[in-house]
Amino acid sequence: MSTFPRSYPMSGGDDQHSYINNSSYQIAAINSVGEKTKQCIIEKLDLPLNSDPGTFRIADYGCSTGPNTFHVVQSIIDAVKFKQLEYNNEKSLMPLEFQVFFNDQPNNDFNTLFTTQPPSSELEYFSAGVPGSFHGQVLPRNTVHIGHTSYTTHWLSNVPEHVDDKNSPAWNKNYIQCNNSIEEVTKSYKVQFTKDMKLFLEARAEEIVPGGLMIVLGQCLPDGVPLFKTYQGILVDTIGDCLMDMAKSGLTSEEKIGLFTLPAYFPQFSELKTEIEKNRSFTIETMESVSHPLEDIPLSNQFLISMFRAILSTIIKEHFGEDVIDELFDRVAKKLAKYPIDFKVCEKNVTYFILLKRK
Amino acid sequence: MSTFPRSYPMSGGDDQHSYINNSSYQIAAINSVGEKTKQCIIEKLDLPLNSDPGTFRIADYGCSTGPNTFHVVQSIIDAVKFKQLEYNNEKSLMPLEFQVFFNDQPNNDFNTLFTTQPPSSELEYFSAGVPGSFHGQVLPRNTVHIGHTSYTTHWLSNVPEHVDDKNSPAWNKNYIQCNNSIEEVTKSYKVQFTKDMKLFLEARAEEIVPGGLMIVLGQCLPDGVPLFKTYQGILVDTIGDCLMDMAKSGLTSEEKIGLFTLPAYFPQFSELKTEIEKNRSFTIETMESVSHPLEDIPLSNQFLISMFRAILSTIIKEHFGEDVIDELFDRVAKKLAKYPIDFKVCEKNVTYFILLKRK
Repeated sequence: MSTFPRSYPMSGGDDQHSYINNSSYQIAAINSVGEKTKQCIIEKLDLPLNSDPGTFRIADYGCSTGPNTFHVVQSIIDAVKFKQLEYNNEKSLMPLEFQVFFNDQPNNDFNTLFTTQPPSSELEYFSAGVPGSFHGQVLPRNTVHIGHTSYTTHWLSNVPEHVDDKNSPAWNKNYIQCNNSIEEVTKSYKVQFTKDMKLFLEARAEEIVPGGLMIVLGQCLPDGVPLFKTYQGILVDTIGDCLMDMAKSGLTSEEKIGLFTLPAYFPQFSELKTEIEKNRSFTIETMESVSHPLEDIPLSNQFLISMFRAILSTIIKEHFGEDVIDELFDRVAKKLAKYPIDFKVCEKNVTYFILLKRK
Repeated sequence: MSTFPRSYPMSGGDDQHSYINNSSYQIAAINSVGEKTKQCIIEKLDLPLNSDPGTFRIADYGCSTGPNTFHVVQSIIDAVKFKQLEYNNEKSLMPLEFQVFFNDQPNNDFNTLFTTQPPSSELEYFSAGVPGSFHGQVLPRNTVHIGHTSYTTHWLSNVPEHVDDKNSPAWNKNYIQCNNSIEEVTKSYKVQFTKDMKLFLEARAEEIVPGGLMIVLGQCLPDGVPLFKTYQGILVDTIGDCLMDMAKSGLTSEEKIGLFTLPAYFPQFSELKTEIEKNRSFTIETMESVSHPLEDIPLSNQFLISMFRAILSTIIKEHFGEDVIDELFDRVAKKLAKYPIDFKVCEKNVTYFILLKRK
């Protein structure tokens, strides 16, 4: 029922390069909005919490392998229980049972997700993994009470049209991302992002019950700032440069690089807002930029490389082959050691927190 | 919430020794009762199929990695749709949405399950993997409309007490299964089976809605027949003999074998019936022995070995180490070539089909 495009999940397993061991940047953001999330649920969740017997369903879209997703769902459950306790004193009711749907692409490493989950004796919910692209419906109509997603909506369902076509004005040349330095490329990416955001919100509108909530946490650009001026932009451009160096050494080819560009787009804040407002099934209860706990700390090269390796390995491997990875990230490390990112000079991106309520 | 004992799923992956490629015996049984299943659903399912909007939830308990589970759930969906069409002519209703829960132990190979599922464009349901032991509740109360399990309920949640204790009269000696040749061992296994069957049925009674169905397909012994007289019993005893041979060659030890015994128990037909009748939440609509399409065909040694290797590898590896497997099954092949199982002489086991309705 959902669309299953080619997909590139975060690095699976639990080794030193895995997402599970390299997702502290994301969890820092999640934790920093924990209190806000709790307050939002308490104030805005518009559901009777007294159905008997009742199942309260939570979905985390694009959950990857954990452990971040376990933190998120537990804090949502804590908030719902708090709200139920505060506003509902009928002791005769059976307690709510929570069911949590962990969604990600079918080739996500669900085995690691399931085997690293807290022991069942500590779990306050029934767990289910849902394989499928969140650009389509992955759960039945009107069955989700709170949806959540963090650091996911910049991922596109496909590489936009023409950006890997050498003969198109929208060709992204030897860049491996949409860094906003070529206008036609940005336009093409924006078209795809608009389409995908629409699909994402329409699917969630089907799944979430009226009065239910959708929490979206992520990263975008401040208005007027191109990606190539942020440290993330600089870092991914550096990875691209290192690939080009490897092409010169014969370890890959320029032609291959010309065909490669990441299916990810970071919109500017107001652009993101516009796309969300187009969907009429939700009201925007909150949409704000929040401070990321690490935003004023110059991140070490090692931290940056580990984080981006966990995020990008799967997709780079798929295109360039397994054997380029170690060499590539070694080169990135050397390049960054020589030309460190100047955090004082580069622009900051925006960490946003959005709360939508299903009408 | 559910109990997560140590568990030994079927062999994962998709290589020559995987369950996915060695489960044709099980699918033969599933297919042979396909028509019966359909009729049972049409006649016995006691639910209004016109709720609007409605989610119809199906759970396959102990689903392993596929492909059998995909056949089963599709045939259940076909039957429900047929019933809905036959008995419900109100065209204005929104079509039912199906949600299927694939349950197995958390260390089951869900990655293979999800990536070998039919493409989403062909799927008529929303898919979810549910990690957890079916001896506990794995889904919320009153949410499942049809449950199914095949070839699973002989698996125990634990090795019974004392059967691996050299000083107990219930010690299973060098047998690696409860083959019914030692009375005290059988008793101990029966205690565990009784406990586990109770847990299994109580958990399903929580999960399945009143009027919903639970289909149980599997294998047991005819009344009065011990396991060691059936070809399955003989085969597993042969595997035990080969382990003993390996102990003599120093490749493992008798002590290790004395501590090893499979957490599986095949009850006799009437014994199984008694255990099911103890649960008062279900009515037994059907409980009968059915003919297995392969029951009158002498199975080739290769077929038998592949099937039992896929079933038992994980648990044997866990106890004896990864490196015994190839050697062990080579020895089994040689032993069977020398002393083939005489299908004319050995007793047949019973393939049973049970339909329970939730009161």
